[in-house]
Amino acid sequence: MTYCVGLKMDRGLIFMSDTRTNAGLDNISTFSKMHVWSREGDRLIVLLSAGNLATTQAVIGRLDEQIRIEEPGKPSLMQTASMFQTAQLIGTTVKEVIRDAAPAGQTADAFAASFILGGQIRGDEPRLFYIYPEGNFIESSPDTPFFQIGEHKYGKPIIVRAYDRKMSDEDAIKLLLVSFDSTLKSNLSVGLPLDMHLYRADSFARGVSKRFERNDPYYVAISEGWSDALRSAFHSLPALAL
Amino acid sequence: MTYCVGLKMDRGLIFMSDTRTNAGLDNISTFSKMHVWSREGDRLIVLLSAGNLATTQAVIGRLDEQIRIEEPGKPSLMQTASMFQTAQLIGTTVKEVIRDAAPAGQTADAFAASFILGGQIRGDEPRLFYIYPEGNFIESSPDTPFFQIGEHKYGKPIIVRAYDRKMSDEDAIKLLLVSFDSTLKSNLSVGLPLDMHLYRADSFARGVSKRFERNDPYYVAISEGWSDALRSAFHSLPALAL
Repeated sequence: MTYCVGLKMDRGLIFMSDTRTNAGLDNISTFSKMHVWSREGDRLIVLLSAGNLATTQAVIGRLDEQIRIEEPGKPSLMQTASMFQTAQLIGTTVKEVIRDAAPAGQTADAFAASFILGGQIRGDEPRLFYIYPEGNFIESSPDTPFFQIGEHKYGKPIIVRAYDRKMSDEDAIKLLLVSFDSTLKSNLSVGLPLDMHLYRADSFARGVSKRFERNDPYYVAISEGWSDALRSAFHSLPALAL
Repeated sequence: MTYCVGLKMDRGLIFMSDTRTNAGLDNISTFSKMHVWSREGDRLIVLLSAGNLATTQAVIGRLDEQIRIEEPGKPSLMQTASMFQTAQLIGTTVKEVIRDAAPAGQTADAFAASFILGGQIRGDEPRLFYIYPEGNFIESSPDTPFFQIGEHKYGKPIIVRAYDRKMSDEDAIKLLLVSFDSTLKSNLSVGLPLDMHLYRADSFARGVSKRFERNDPYYVAISEGWSDALRSAFHSLPALAL
């Protein structure tokens, strides 16, 4: 499995993804599930992927090919006029990849992949989308300011409770690390290292990229600190009189 | 869906279950998923159920019938000599119910149900089992002191972090309420009221039974207190220097 989160706040967008892929428990590899494209001053696009690794790599591969070749009449990720058009382009690419794979005999379900797309293109706001394996998509809103793909349940409660659209960059990083740490502690199919990208609204450039390895001092501080803080929080609650 | 937890600690066993059942989002009902049998001084047996409601009710119904009829050579829940035999009896009953339903045309998967069984019979320790839809089962151990069935992911991280086998009855109740509250806040298919049963080791009698309704003052205190405590815990963690 996989765990990826994209979260929109007033200050920008933040993305985090794990790096574990597995085809059976004895066939585990590390692949980045975060892809970032940018042209300084014009656009920053981040794509997180979950699902069949052949499908997600084929989608990324085709998107990169389009940028390299620049066919007339077929805008690449570097030419789309808005994030909405970018979501359409990726949705179409997902559909093509799955359609091309399906006739080989297996059902389309086996090739399924989901994506979180976020970023900003000059003239447009920072936007965040969830792209389904069917190629259609939804956009985040003030009521639903974040999307998760993959093994999303363990890490959802803390995001639901601690998210605040006005939160600082530091709090957003902390929030996602806590959400990932809860998932890592509960599910073997999600694994370190974690990739993070923090995009600051209206910067139209790469933001802060960071990979958290197992021994990263900040990740260790959060992981250990959160266990202690949770236990203290737990003990601060009143007891039922029996 | 459903969420049920059975947890073993040094002082005894604690069980909690939600009461929501649904066949589609517009067909929601309240059914208890906790069944308690006891004979004072001899045994206390608790069974939590998740899955197809017709299957779980048929299992409970057959177990009750066996107690009422007391066929010779077929021990009922009131006659089994150990908790292991009790698990075997329930496993056999689950298999019978699913086998009887399957020939009507649907696959056996549609009738699947899982159970958490716990209790104590004189001469035996307090024991906790997880019974699969196939009728086989596993027993808890010091490494795996709790079982969850149904919508288990949201509420697992807090149990993993705050469980302590030496915990007090009050802390055990608090822990399960926090775990249920995290699940209730994230998933509509799990709903109040919550049923609880706390069994004290070697009492061989019903323990503390309680139903937490939506406006139960202690449940409200835990639910609100936990949101605040989590936010404080979150803010107590260090920030990453950017």
